[in-house]
Amino acid sequence: MSNTQDAILFDRITFIGIGLIGSSLALSARKSKSVNHITVCDINQAHREKALELGLCDVATGDYIEAVKDADLVVLCVPPGSCGDAAAAMAPGLKKGCIVSDVGSVKQAIVQSVGVHLPDGVHFVPAHPIAGTEHSGPEAGFAELFKGRWLILTPPAGTNEDAIKKVTTLWERAGSQIELMDAQHHDMVLAITSHLPHLIAYTIVGTADDLGDHLKQEVIKFSASGFRDFTRIASSDPVMWRDVFLNNKEAVLEILQRFSEDLTFLQRAIRWGEADKLEELFTRTREIRREIIDANQA
Amino acid sequence: MSNTQDAILFDRITFIGIGLIGSSLALSARKSKSVNHITVCDINQAHREKALELGLCDVATGDYIEAVKDADLVVLCVPPGSCGDAAAAMAPGLKKGCIVSDVGSVKQAIVQSVGVHLPDGVHFVPAHPIAGTEHSGPEAGFAELFKGRWLILTPPAGTNEDAIKKVTTLWERAGSQIELMDAQHHDMVLAITSHLPHLIAYTIVGTADDLGDHLKQEVIKFSASGFRDFTRIASSDPVMWRDVFLNNKEAVLEILQRFSEDLTFLQRAIRWGEADKLEELFTRTREIRREIIDANQA
Repeated sequence: MSNTQDAILFDRITFIGIGLIGSSLALSARKSKSVNHITVCDINQAHREKALELGLCDVATGDYIEAVKDADLVVLCVPPGSCGDAAAAMAPGLKKGCIVSDVGSVKQAIVQSVGVHLPDGVHFVPAHPIAGTEHSGPEAGFAELFKGRWLILTPPAGTNEDAIKKVTTLWERAGSQIELMDAQHHDMVLAITSHLPHLIAYTIVGTADDLGDHLKQEVIKFSASGFRDFTRIASSDPVMWRDVFLNNKEAVLEILQRFSEDLTFLQRAIRWGEADKLEELFTRTREIRREIIDANQA
Repeated sequence: MSNTQDAILFDRITFIGIGLIGSSLALSARKSKSVNHITVCDINQAHREKALELGLCDVATGDYIEAVKDADLVVLCVPPGSCGDAAAAMAPGLKKGCIVSDVGSVKQAIVQSVGVHLPDGVHFVPAHPIAGTEHSGPEAGFAELFKGRWLILTPPAGTNEDAIKKVTTLWERAGSQIELMDAQHHDMVLAITSHLPHLIAYTIVGTADDLGDHLKQEVIKFSASGFRDFTRIASSDPVMWRDVFLNNKEAVLEILQRFSEDLTFLQRAIRWGEADKLEELFTRTREIRREIIDANQA
Protein backbone atom coordinates (compact mmCIF):
# COMPACT_ATOMS: atom_id res chain seq x y z
CA MET A 1 0.00 0.00 0.00
CA SER A 2 2.63 2.45 1.15
CA ASN A 3 4.70 1.92 -1.99
CA THR A 4 2.06 3.46 -4.23
CA GLN A 5 2.37 6.84 -2.50
CA ASP A 6 4.59 9.55 -3.87
CA ALA A 7 3.91 12.92 -2.35
CA ILE A 8 5.36 14.36 0.84
CA LEU A 9 2.43 15.19 3.15
CA PHE A 10 4.28 17.10 5.85
CA ASP A 11 7.71 18.67 5.65
CA ARG A 12 8.21 18.29 9.40
CA ILE A 13 6.41 16.04 11.90
CA THR A 14 7.01 16.16 15.64
CA PHE A 15 6.08 13.32 17.94
CA ILE A 16 5.47 14.25 21.56
CA GLY A 17 6.22 10.97 23.34
CA ILE A 18 7.73 8.02 21.48
CA GLY A 19 6.24 4.76 22.76
CA LEU A 20 4.68 1.88 20.82
CA ILE A 21 2.22 4.02 18.82
CA GLY A 22 4.48 7.00 18.18
CA SER A 23 7.38 4.86 17.00
CA SER A 24 5.13 2.78 14.76
CA LEU A 25 3.62 5.86 13.13
CA ALA A 26 7.09 7.40 12.69
CA LEU A 27 8.32 4.26 10.93
CA SER A 28 5.24 4.11 8.75
CA ALA A 29 5.44 7.82 7.81
CA ARG A 30 9.07 7.35 6.79
CA LYS A 31 8.26 4.21 4.85
CA SER A 32 5.46 5.88 2.88
CA LYS A 33 7.71 8.90 2.20
CA SER A 34 5.12 11.17 3.76
CA VAL A 35 7.61 13.29 5.70
CA ASN A 36 11.00 14.96 5.24
CA HIS A 37 12.04 15.51 8.83
CA ILE A 38 10.96 13.95 12.13
CA THR A 39 11.52 15.42 15.58
CA VAL A 40 10.88 13.49 18.77
CA CYS A 41 10.17 15.22 22.06
CA ASP A 42 10.23 12.91 25.07
CA ILE A 43 10.97 13.71 28.71
CA ASN A 44 12.54 10.26 29.05
CA GLN A 45 16.19 10.50 27.99
CA ALA A 46 16.49 6.75 27.38
CA HIS A 47 13.57 6.97 24.96
CA ARG A 48 15.19 9.87 23.10
CA GLU A 49 18.44 7.96 22.74
CA LYS A 50 16.61 4.82 21.64
CA ALA A 51 14.58 6.82 19.09
CA LEU A 52 17.76 8.24 17.53
CA GLU A 53 19.48 4.86 17.61
CA LEU A 54 16.53 3.21 15.85
CA GLY A 55 16.37 5.96 13.23
CA LEU A 56 12.86 6.94 14.26
CA CYS A 57 13.75 10.63 14.06
CA ASP A 58 16.31 13.15 12.89
CA VAL A 59 16.33 15.13 16.11
CA ALA A 60 15.36 14.24 19.67
CA THR A 61 14.86 16.78 22.43
CA GLY A 62 13.29 17.24 25.85
CA ASP A 63 12.26 20.83 25.07
CA TYR A 64 8.63 21.14 23.94
CA ILE A 65 8.84 24.59 22.38
CA GLU A 66 12.05 23.79 20.51
CA ALA A 67 10.52 20.50 19.33
CA VAL A 68 7.42 21.96 17.70
CA LYS A 69 8.65 25.29 16.40
CA ASP A 70 8.79 24.43 12.69
CA ALA A 71 6.42 21.47 12.76
CA ASP A 72 3.64 21.08 10.19
CA LEU A 73 2.12 18.24 12.19
CA VAL A 74 2.49 17.51 15.90
CA VAL A 75 1.24 14.13 17.14
CA LEU A 76 0.69 13.77 20.87
CA CYS A 77 1.66 10.18 21.75
CA VAL A 78 1.79 10.52 25.53
CA PRO A 79 -0.70 8.85 27.94
CA PRO A 80 -4.17 10.49 27.91
CA GLY A 81 -3.63 12.13 31.29
CA SER A 82 -0.51 13.94 30.04
CA CYS A 83 -1.93 15.34 26.79
CA GLY A 84 -3.22 18.55 28.38
CA ASP A 85 0.08 19.38 30.06
CA ALA A 86 2.02 18.57 26.90
CA ALA A 87 -0.29 20.85 24.88
CA ALA A 88 0.19 23.67 27.38
CA ALA A 89 3.97 23.26 27.29
CA MET A 90 4.27 23.25 23.50
CA ALA A 91 1.56 25.80 22.64
CA PRO A 92 3.83 28.88 22.58
CA GLY A 93 6.04 27.20 19.96
CA LEU A 94 3.34 26.17 17.47
CA LYS A 95 3.38 27.97 14.15
CA LYS A 96 0.23 29.22 12.45
CA GLY A 97 -1.40 26.53 10.26
CA CYS A 98 0.19 23.71 12.22
CA ILE A 99 -1.96 20.60 12.64
CA VAL A 100 -2.06 18.95 16.07
CA SER A 101 -3.30 15.39 16.44
CA ASP A 102 -3.12 12.67 19.08
CA VAL A 103 -3.53 8.90 19.40
CA GLY A 104 -5.34 8.65 22.75
CA SER A 105 -7.79 5.86 23.62
CA VAL A 106 -10.22 8.37 25.13
CA LYS A 107 -11.44 11.33 23.16
CA GLN A 108 -13.76 13.68 25.08
CA ALA A 109 -11.25 14.32 27.86
CA ILE A 110 -8.40 14.90 25.40
CA VAL A 111 -10.43 17.17 23.10
CA GLN A 112 -11.16 19.23 26.19
CA SER A 113 -7.73 19.21 27.88
CA VAL A 114 -5.73 19.81 24.69
CA GLY A 115 -8.14 22.09 22.86
CA VAL A 116 -8.14 24.70 25.58
CA HIS A 117 -4.39 25.33 25.16
CA LEU A 118 -4.11 25.55 21.39
CA PRO A 119 -3.75 29.04 19.86
CA ASP A 120 -5.96 30.32 17.04
CA GLY A 121 -4.82 29.21 13.61
CA VAL A 122 -3.71 25.78 14.82
CA HIS A 123 -5.94 22.87 13.71
CA PHE A 124 -6.68 20.06 16.15
CA VAL A 125 -7.67 16.68 14.64
CA PRO A 126 -8.16 14.11 17.44
CA ALA A 127 -7.41 10.55 16.37
CA HIS A 128 -7.39 7.06 17.86
CA PRO A 129 -5.78 4.09 16.08
CA ILE A 130 -7.45 0.81 17.14
CA ALA A 131 -4.19 -1.05 17.19
CA GLY A 132 -1.59 -2.04 19.70
CA THR A 133 0.26 -4.87 21.33
CA GLU A 134 1.00 -5.67 24.97
CA HIS A 135 4.51 -4.28 24.49
CA SER A 136 5.49 -0.66 25.06
CA GLY A 137 8.38 1.73 24.48
CA PRO A 138 10.06 3.00 21.27
CA GLU A 139 11.67 -0.39 20.54
CA ALA A 140 8.21 -2.03 20.42
CA GLY A 141 7.15 -0.12 17.29
CA PHE A 142 6.82 -1.49 13.77
CA ALA A 143 5.55 0.13 10.57
CA GLU A 144 2.86 -2.51 9.94
CA LEU A 145 1.07 -2.08 13.28
CA PHE A 146 -1.82 -0.15 11.70
CA LYS A 147 -2.28 -2.27 8.60
CA GLY A 148 -5.95 -3.23 8.17
CA ARG A 149 -6.89 -1.67 11.51
CA TRP A 150 -9.37 1.09 12.20
CA LEU A 151 -8.40 4.71 12.80
CA ILE A 152 -11.15 6.74 14.41
CA LEU A 153 -11.16 10.50 13.96
CA THR A 154 -13.31 12.68 16.23
CA PRO A 155 -12.86 16.22 14.89
CA PRO A 156 -15.23 18.73 16.53
CA ALA A 157 -17.68 20.52 14.23
CA GLY A 158 -15.94 23.26 12.27
CA THR A 159 -12.51 21.61 12.18
CA ASN A 160 -10.49 22.63 9.12
CA GLU A 161 -11.30 20.18 6.30
CA ASP A 162 -7.81 20.25 4.80
CA ALA A 163 -6.31 19.35 8.14
CA ILE A 164 -8.68 16.38 8.48
CA LYS A 165 -7.80 15.29 4.97
CA LYS A 166 -4.04 15.39 5.55
CA VAL A 167 -4.27 13.42 8.81
CA THR A 168 -6.58 10.95 7.08
CA THR A 169 -4.08 10.43 4.26
CA LEU A 170 -1.19 9.87 6.65
CA TRP A 171 -3.10 7.08 8.39
CA GLU A 172 -4.39 5.62 5.15
CA ARG A 173 -0.80 5.32 4.01
CA ALA A 174 -0.11 3.43 7.28
CA GLY A 175 -2.74 0.95 6.11
CA SER A 176 -5.61 2.10 8.36
CA GLN A 177 -9.31 2.24 7.54
CA ILE A 178 -10.73 5.58 8.59
CA GLU A 179 -13.95 6.17 10.54
CA LEU A 180 -15.33 9.53 11.65
CA MET A 181 -17.22 9.63 14.93
CA ASP A 182 -18.49 11.92 17.63
CA ALA A 183 -16.08 11.96 20.61
CA GLN A 184 -18.75 11.02 23.13
CA HIS A 185 -19.92 8.10 21.01
CA HIS A 186 -16.31 6.97 20.57
CA ASP A 187 -15.82 6.89 24.33
CA MET A 188 -18.89 4.69 24.85
CA VAL A 189 -18.00 2.22 22.07
CA LEU A 190 -14.44 1.94 23.32
CA ALA A 191 -15.57 1.58 26.93
CA ILE A 192 -17.26 -1.63 25.84
CA THR A 193 -14.80 -3.01 23.29
CA SER A 194 -11.58 -2.04 24.99
CA HIS A 195 -11.70 -0.37 28.39
CA LEU A 196 -13.95 -2.87 30.17
CA PRO A 197 -12.09 -5.91 28.75
CA HIS A 198 -8.81 -4.44 29.95
CA LEU A 199 -10.22 -3.61 33.39
CA ILE A 200 -11.53 -7.14 33.78
CA ALA A 201 -8.28 -8.71 32.61
CA TYR A 202 -6.33 -6.59 35.09
CA THR A 203 -8.75 -7.60 37.84
CA ILE A 204 -8.61 -11.35 37.27
CA VAL A 205 -4.83 -11.36 37.00
CA GLY A 206 -4.70 -9.35 40.22
CA THR A 207 -7.06 -11.83 41.92
CA ALA A 208 -4.70 -14.64 40.91
CA ASP A 209 -1.68 -12.67 42.07
CA ASP A 210 -3.19 -12.40 45.55
CA LEU A 211 -3.42 -16.19 45.93
CA GLY A 212 -0.96 -18.05 48.11
CA ASP A 213 2.42 -18.69 46.55
CA HIS A 214 1.94 -22.39 45.83
CA LEU A 215 -1.45 -21.92 44.18
CA LYS A 216 -0.11 -18.96 42.19
CA GLN A 217 2.71 -21.08 40.77
CA GLU A 218 0.15 -23.63 39.62
CA VAL A 219 -1.98 -20.95 38.04
CA ILE A 220 1.05 -19.94 35.99
CA LYS A 221 1.81 -23.56 35.14
CA PHE A 222 -1.72 -24.30 33.93
CA SER A 223 -2.43 -20.85 32.50
CA ALA A 224 -3.02 -22.21 29.01
CA SER A 225 -6.58 -23.15 29.94
CA GLY A 226 -7.92 -19.61 29.53
CA PHE A 227 -6.14 -17.43 32.07
CA ARG A 228 -3.17 -16.87 29.75
CA ASP A 229 -5.22 -14.76 27.32
CA PHE A 230 -6.11 -12.41 30.14
CA THR A 231 -2.49 -12.00 31.24
CA ARG A 232 -1.54 -10.79 27.78
CA ILE A 233 -4.16 -8.05 27.96
CA ALA A 234 -3.20 -7.28 31.56
CA SER A 235 0.44 -6.69 30.65
CA SER A 236 -0.38 -3.54 28.68
CA ASP A 237 1.18 -0.20 29.63
CA PRO A 238 0.13 0.59 33.25
CA VAL A 239 0.30 4.40 33.06
CA MET A 240 -1.56 4.59 29.76
CA TRP A 241 -4.35 2.40 31.09
CA ARG A 242 -4.53 4.19 34.42
CA ASP A 243 -5.17 7.37 32.43
CA VAL A 244 -7.75 5.72 30.18
CA PHE A 245 -9.92 4.73 33.14
CA LEU A 246 -9.56 8.07 34.89
CA ASN A 247 -10.35 9.97 31.69
CA ASN A 248 -13.30 7.90 30.54
CA LYS A 249 -14.78 7.45 33.99
CA GLU A 250 -18.43 7.98 33.13
CA ALA A 251 -18.70 5.50 30.26
CA VAL A 252 -16.51 2.91 32.00
CA LEU A 253 -18.54 3.04 35.21
CA GLU A 254 -21.78 2.76 33.28
CA ILE A 255 -20.75 -0.31 31.31
CA LEU A 256 -19.08 -1.81 34.39
CA GLN A 257 -22.37 -1.54 36.24
CA ARG A 258 -24.14 -3.50 33.50
CA PHE A 259 -21.39 -6.11 33.49
CA SER A 260 -21.60 -6.54 37.28
CA GLU A 261 -25.36 -7.07 37.12
CA ASP A 262 -24.92 -9.68 34.41
CA LEU A 263 -22.19 -11.44 36.38
CA THR A 264 -24.37 -11.52 39.50
CA PHE A 265 -27.16 -13.03 37.41
CA LEU A 266 -24.84 -15.84 36.31
CA GLN A 267 -23.47 -16.30 39.81
CA ARG A 268 -27.00 -16.82 41.07
CA ALA A 269 -27.78 -19.24 38.22
CA ILE A 270 -24.73 -21.31 39.17
CA ARG A 271 -25.62 -21.28 42.87
CA TRP A 272 -29.18 -22.44 42.20
CA GLY A 273 -28.24 -24.86 39.44
CA GLU A 274 -30.26 -23.08 36.74
CA ALA A 275 -28.82 -24.99 33.77
CA ASP A 276 -31.12 -23.44 31.17
CA LYS A 277 -30.07 -19.86 31.97
CA LEU A 278 -26.40 -20.74 31.56
CA GLU A 279 -26.87 -22.68 28.34
CA GLU A 280 -29.06 -19.98 26.82
CA LEU A 281 -26.41 -17.29 27.37
CA PHE A 282 -23.48 -19.50 26.29
CA THR A 283 -25.31 -20.28 23.05
CA ARG A 284 -26.13 -16.63 22.40
CA THR A 285 -22.52 -15.48 22.85
CA ARG A 286 -21.37 -17.85 20.11
CA GLU A 287 -23.37 -15.82 17.63
CA ILE A 288 -21.34 -12.65 18.27
CA ARG A 289 -18.14 -14.54 17.54
CA ARG A 290 -19.58 -15.59 14.20
CA GLU A 291 -20.48 -12.00 13.37
CA ILE A 292 -16.94 -10.88 14.21
CA ILE A 293 -15.53 -13.57 11.95
CA ASP A 294 -17.95 -12.47 9.21
CA ALA A 295 -16.79 -8.87 9.69
CA ASN A 296 -13.17 -10.03 9.18
CA GLN A 297 -12.18 -8.78 12.62
CA ALA A 298 -11.18 -12.20 14.02
CA MET B 1 7.37 -38.02 19.46
CA SER B 2 4.66 -40.42 18.30
CA ASN B 3 6.97 -41.94 15.69
CA THR B 4 9.33 -43.37 18.28
CA GLN B 5 6.60 -45.58 19.77
CA ASP B 6 6.16 -49.15 18.69
CA ALA B 7 3.95 -51.15 21.05
CA ILE B 8 0.18 -51.43 20.94
CA LEU B 9 -1.12 -50.19 24.31
CA PHE B 10 -4.75 -51.22 23.98
CA ASP B 11 -6.26 -53.72 21.58
CA ARG B 12 -9.61 -51.93 21.67
CA ILE B 13 -10.48 -48.39 22.74
CA THR B 14 -14.03 -47.08 22.94
CA PHE B 15 -14.82 -43.38 22.96
CA ILE B 16 -18.12 -42.42 24.56
CA GLY B 17 -18.86 -39.12 22.83
CA ILE B 18 -16.79 -37.91 19.89
CA GLY B 19 -16.35 -34.15 20.04
CA LEU B 20 -13.16 -32.07 19.82
CA ILE B 21 -11.26 -33.93 22.56
CA GLY B 22 -12.44 -37.45 21.73
CA SER B 23 -11.69 -37.09 18.02
CA SER B 24 -8.25 -35.58 18.71
CA LEU B 25 -7.32 -38.40 21.09
CA ALA B 26 -8.59 -40.99 18.59
CA LEU B 27 -6.43 -39.49 15.84
CA SER B 28 -3.41 -39.33 18.10
CA ALA B 29 -3.85 -42.92 19.35
CA ARG B 30 -4.03 -44.12 15.75
CA LYS B 31 -1.01 -42.07 14.76
CA SER B 32 1.13 -43.44 17.59
CA LYS B 33 -0.03 -46.98 16.78
CA SER B 34 -1.27 -47.39 20.33
CA VAL B 35 -4.53 -49.14 19.37
CA ASN B 36 -5.80 -51.81 17.00
CA HIS B 37 -9.50 -51.07 16.98
CA ILE B 38 -11.55 -47.99 17.86
CA THR B 39 -15.27 -47.91 18.61
CA VAL B 40 -17.23 -44.70 18.94
CA CYS B 41 -20.45 -44.51 20.91
CA ASP B 42 -22.38 -41.29 20.40
CA ILE B 43 -26.10 -40.62 20.76
CA ASN B 44 -25.81 -38.07 17.97
CA GLN B 45 -26.20 -39.88 14.65
CA ALA B 46 -24.54 -37.09 12.66
CA HIS B 47 -21.47 -37.38 14.90
CA ARG B 48 -21.34 -41.16 14.37
CA GLU B 49 -21.49 -40.73 10.61
CA LYS B 50 -18.87 -37.98 10.67
CA ALA B 51 -16.58 -40.12 12.87
CA LEU B 52 -16.74 -43.00 10.38
CA GLU B 53 -16.29 -40.68 7.42
CA LEU B 54 -13.21 -39.10 9.01
CA GLY B 55 -11.74 -42.51 9.85
CA LEU B 56 -11.76 -41.75 13.56
CA CYS B 57 -13.12 -45.22 14.32
CA ASP B 58 -13.76 -48.68 12.91
CA VAL B 59 -17.26 -48.97 14.34
CA ALA B 60 -19.80 -46.37 15.47
CA THR B 61 -22.89 -47.18 17.49
CA GLY B 62 -25.50 -45.60 19.71
CA ASP B 63 -25.64 -48.62 22.02
CA TYR B 64 -23.51 -48.19 25.14
CA ILE B 65 -23.32 -51.85 26.15
CA GLU B 66 -22.51 -53.02 22.64
CA ALA B 67 -19.88 -50.27 22.37
CA VAL B 68 -17.86 -51.20 25.43
CA LYS B 69 -18.21 -54.96 25.55
CA ASP B 70 -14.70 -55.90 24.38
CA ALA B 71 -13.00 -52.61 25.23
CA ASP B 72 -9.65 -52.50 27.05
CA LEU B 73 -10.00 -48.76 27.52
CA VAL B 74 -13.16 -46.67 27.57
CA VAL B 75 -12.74 -42.89 27.45
CA LEU B 76 -15.73 -40.79 28.45
CA CYS B 77 -15.68 -37.69 26.22
CA VAL B 78 -19.17 -36.38 26.96
CA PRO B 79 -19.90 -33.15 28.89
CA PRO B 80 -19.22 -33.44 32.66
CA GLY B 81 -22.93 -33.55 33.51
CA SER B 82 -23.47 -36.59 31.27
CA CYS B 83 -20.57 -38.72 32.53
CA GLY B 84 -22.56 -40.34 35.35
CA ASP B 85 -25.46 -41.36 33.09
CA ALA B 86 -23.06 -42.67 30.46
CA ALA B 87 -21.22 -44.73 33.09
CA ALA B 88 -24.52 -46.18 34.34
CA ALA B 89 -25.57 -47.07 30.80
CA MET B 90 -22.34 -48.79 29.83
CA ALA B 91 -21.48 -50.44 33.16
CA PRO B 92 -23.22 -53.80 32.47
CA GLY B 93 -21.09 -54.23 29.30
CA LEU B 94 -17.63 -53.54 30.82
CA LYS B 95 -15.30 -56.53 30.94
CA LYS B 96 -13.13 -57.30 33.96
CA GLY B 97 -9.80 -55.47 33.85
CA CYS B 98 -11.15 -52.74 31.58
CA ILE B 99 -9.79 -49.25 32.23
CA VAL B 100 -12.24 -46.36 32.23
CA SER B 101 -10.99 -42.80 31.88
CA ASP B 102 -12.49 -39.42 31.03
CA VAL B 103 -11.42 -35.97 29.84
CA GLY B 104 -13.65 -33.75 31.96
CA SER B 105 -12.71 -30.23 33.08
CA VAL B 106 -14.03 -30.90 36.58
CA LYS B 107 -12.82 -33.86 38.57
CA GLN B 108 -14.49 -34.28 41.99
CA ALA B 109 -18.02 -34.43 40.56
CA ILE B 110 -17.00 -36.88 37.82
CA VAL B 111 -15.01 -39.14 40.15
CA GLN B 112 -18.15 -39.33 42.26
CA SER B 113 -20.81 -39.66 39.54
CA VAL B 114 -18.88 -42.17 37.42
CA GLY B 115 -17.17 -44.14 40.20
CA VAL B 116 -20.43 -45.16 41.82
CA HIS B 117 -21.55 -47.06 38.68
CA LEU B 118 -18.37 -48.99 37.83
CA PRO B 119 -18.28 -52.70 38.74
CA ASP B 120 -15.45 -54.26 40.74
CA GLY B 121 -12.44 -55.17 38.63
CA VAL B 122 -12.79 -52.12 36.40
CA HIS B 123 -10.12 -49.43 36.92
CA PHE B 124 -11.10 -45.78 36.81
CA VAL B 125 -8.33 -43.26 35.98
CA PRO B 126 -9.80 -39.73 35.82
CA ALA B 127 -7.95 -37.44 33.42
CA HIS B 128 -8.14 -33.84 32.18
CA PRO B 129 -6.16 -32.63 29.18
CA ILE B 130 -5.45 -28.87 29.43
CA ALA B 131 -6.01 -28.32 25.76
CA GLY B 132 -8.80 -27.24 23.49
CA THR B 133 -9.94 -24.74 20.94
CA GLU B 134 -13.14 -22.73 20.61
CA HIS B 135 -14.34 -25.26 18.00
CA SER B 136 -16.35 -28.34 18.81
CA GLY B 137 -17.61 -31.54 17.17
CA PRO B 138 -15.75 -34.52 15.62
CA GLU B 139 -14.55 -32.52 12.62
CA ALA B 140 -12.74 -30.09 14.96
CA GLY B 141 -10.23 -32.69 16.15
CA PHE B 142 -6.57 -32.97 15.20
CA ALA B 143 -3.83 -35.30 16.45
CA GLU B 144 -1.51 -32.49 17.59
CA LEU B 145 -3.99 -30.84 19.96
CA PHE B 146 -2.25 -32.21 23.05
CA LYS B 147 1.33 -31.62 22.00
CA GLY B 148 3.27 -29.83 24.74
CA ARG B 149 0.12 -29.40 26.84
CA TRP B 150 -0.55 -30.64 30.35
CA LEU B 151 -2.58 -33.72 31.15
CA ILE B 152 -3.72 -33.88 34.75
CA LEU B 153 -4.55 -37.26 36.28
CA THR B 154 -6.51 -37.41 39.53
CA PRO B 155 -6.64 -41.12 40.42
CA PRO B 156 -8.11 -41.76 43.89
CA ALA B 157 -5.82 -43.48 46.41
CA GLY B 158 -5.59 -47.21 45.68
CA THR B 159 -6.12 -46.94 41.92
CA ASN B 160 -4.44 -49.78 40.00
CA GLU B 161 -0.89 -48.67 39.16
CA ASP B 162 -0.76 -50.49 35.83
CA ALA B 163 -3.92 -48.74 34.72
CA ILE B 164 -2.46 -45.35 35.62
CA LYS B 165 0.71 -46.23 33.73
CA LYS B 166 -1.11 -47.25 30.55
CA VAL B 167 -3.27 -44.12 30.49
CA THR B 168 -0.16 -42.04 31.18
CA THR B 169 1.65 -43.63 28.23
CA LEU B 170 -1.27 -43.05 25.86
CA TRP B 171 -1.24 -39.34 26.68
CA GLU B 172 2.54 -39.09 26.60
CA ARG B 173 2.41 -40.46 23.08
CA ALA B 174 -0.08 -37.71 22.27
CA GLY B 175 2.62 -35.26 23.32
CA SER B 176 1.26 -34.34 26.76
CA GLN B 177 3.19 -33.64 29.92
CA ILE B 178 1.65 -35.54 32.82
CA GLU B 179 0.83 -34.17 36.28
CA LEU B 180 -0.79 -36.10 39.13
CA MET B 181 -3.06 -34.16 41.43
CA ASP B 182 -5.75 -34.51 44.05
CA ALA B 183 -9.21 -34.01 42.48
CA GLN B 184 -10.22 -31.26 44.90
CA HIS B 185 -7.00 -29.35 44.28
CA HIS B 186 -7.49 -29.75 40.52
CA ASP B 187 -10.93 -28.21 40.77
CA MET B 188 -9.63 -25.15 42.63
CA VAL B 189 -6.68 -24.56 40.26
CA LEU B 190 -8.92 -24.91 37.21
CA ALA B 191 -11.61 -22.69 38.73
CA ILE B 192 -9.02 -19.91 38.65
CA THR B 193 -7.17 -20.64 35.41
CA SER B 194 -10.07 -21.76 33.28
CA HIS B 195 -13.58 -21.66 34.73
CA LEU B 196 -13.57 -18.05 35.97
CA PRO B 197 -11.97 -16.70 32.76
CA HIS B 198 -14.64 -18.48 30.72
CA LEU B 199 -17.45 -17.24 32.95
CA ILE B 200 -16.21 -13.67 32.66
CA ALA B 201 -15.79 -13.90 28.91
CA TYR B 202 -19.33 -15.25 28.55
CA THR B 203 -20.60 -12.43 30.75
CA ILE B 204 -18.94 -9.57 28.91
CA VAL B 205 -19.97 -10.88 25.51
CA GLY B 206 -23.51 -11.23 26.87
CA THR B 207 -23.42 -7.66 28.19
CA ALA B 208 -22.43 -6.49 24.71
CA ASP B 209 -25.12 -8.61 23.10
CA ASP B 210 -27.75 -6.85 25.19
CA LEU B 211 -26.81 -3.42 23.83
CA GLY B 212 -28.98 -1.70 21.28
CA ASP B 213 -28.54 -2.93 17.72
CA HIS B 214 -26.56 0.03 16.40
CA LEU B 215 -24.09 0.01 19.30
CA LYS B 216 -23.73 -3.77 19.03
CA GLN B 217 -22.76 -3.52 15.37
CA GLU B 218 -20.05 -1.04 16.29
CA VAL B 219 -18.79 -3.29 19.06
CA ILE B 220 -18.35 -6.00 16.44
CA LYS B 221 -16.68 -3.57 14.06
CA PHE B 222 -14.17 -2.32 16.63
CA SER B 223 -13.78 -5.59 18.48
CA ALA B 224 -10.04 -5.77 17.79
CA SER B 225 -9.35 -3.42 20.69
CA GLY B 226 -9.67 -6.17 23.33
CA PHE B 227 -13.22 -7.48 23.15
CA ARG B 228 -12.36 -9.90 20.35
CA ASP B 229 -10.19 -12.07 22.63
CA PHE B 230 -13.16 -12.54 24.94
CA THR B 231 -15.48 -13.57 22.12
CA ARG B 232 -13.13 -16.39 21.16
CA ILE B 233 -13.28 -17.80 24.69
CA ALA B 234 -17.03 -17.18 24.85
CA SER B 235 -17.66 -19.24 21.72
CA SER B 236 -16.66 -22.49 23.44
CA ASP B 237 -19.11 -25.40 23.66
CA PRO B 238 -22.20 -24.17 25.59
CA VAL B 239 -23.32 -27.52 27.04
CA MET B 240 -19.85 -28.50 28.17
CA TRP B 241 -19.36 -25.18 29.93
CA ARG B 242 -22.83 -25.20 31.48
CA ASP B 243 -21.86 -28.53 33.05
CA VAL B 244 -18.48 -27.29 34.20
CA PHE B 245 -20.02 -24.48 36.23
CA LEU B 246 -22.77 -26.66 37.67
CA ASN B 247 -20.30 -29.38 38.61
CA ASN B 248 -17.60 -27.18 40.13
CA LYS B 249 -19.99 -24.85 41.86
CA GLU B 250 -18.17 -24.49 45.15
CA ALA B 251 -14.73 -23.56 43.79
CA VAL B 252 -16.18 -21.32 41.06
CA LEU B 253 -18.37 -19.39 43.50
CA GLU B 254 -15.46 -18.94 45.90
CA ILE B 255 -13.09 -17.55 43.29
CA LEU B 256 -15.90 -15.49 41.74
CA GLN B 257 -16.50 -13.86 45.12
CA ARG B 258 -12.84 -12.82 45.34
CA PHE B 259 -12.94 -11.51 41.77
CA SER B 260 -16.07 -9.45 42.47
CA GLU B 261 -14.48 -7.86 45.53
CA ASP B 262 -11.40 -6.97 43.52
CA LEU B 263 -13.50 -5.52 40.71
CA THR B 264 -15.49 -3.41 43.17
CA PHE B 265 -12.21 -2.14 44.61
CA LEU B 266 -11.12 -0.98 41.14
CA GLN B 267 -14.54 0.47 40.37
CA ARG B 268 -14.28 2.58 43.51
CA ALA B 269 -10.72 3.64 42.61
CA ILE B 270 -11.95 4.83 39.20
CA ARG B 271 -14.91 6.68 40.70
CA TRP B 272 -12.71 8.52 43.22
CA GLY B 273 -9.82 9.08 40.81
CA GLU B 274 -7.32 7.07 42.87
CA ALA B 275 -4.58 6.93 40.23
CA ASP B 276 -1.99 5.25 42.48
CA LYS B 277 -4.19 2.23 43.22
CA LEU B 278 -4.82 1.63 39.52
CA GLU B 279 -1.20 2.03 38.51
CA GLU B 280 0.02 -0.21 41.33
CA LEU B 281 -2.22 -3.08 40.25
CA PHE B 282 -1.56 -2.63 36.53
CA THR B 283 2.18 -2.78 37.21
CA ARG B 284 1.87 -5.87 39.39
CA THR B 285 -0.14 -7.81 36.78
CA ARG B 286 2.66 -7.36 34.23
CA GLU B 287 4.88 -9.53 36.42
CA ILE B 288 2.60 -12.56 36.11
CA ARG B 289 2.76 -12.31 32.33
CA ARG B 290 6.55 -12.40 32.56
CA GLU B 291 6.42 -15.50 34.75
CA ILE B 292 4.11 -17.21 32.25
CA ILE B 293 6.51 -16.38 29.44
CA ASP B 294 9.40 -17.70 31.55
CA ALA B 295 7.42 -20.90 32.17
CA ASN B 296 7.01 -21.32 28.39
CA GLN B 297 3.24 -21.22 28.68
CA ALA B 298 2.79 -18.06 26.58
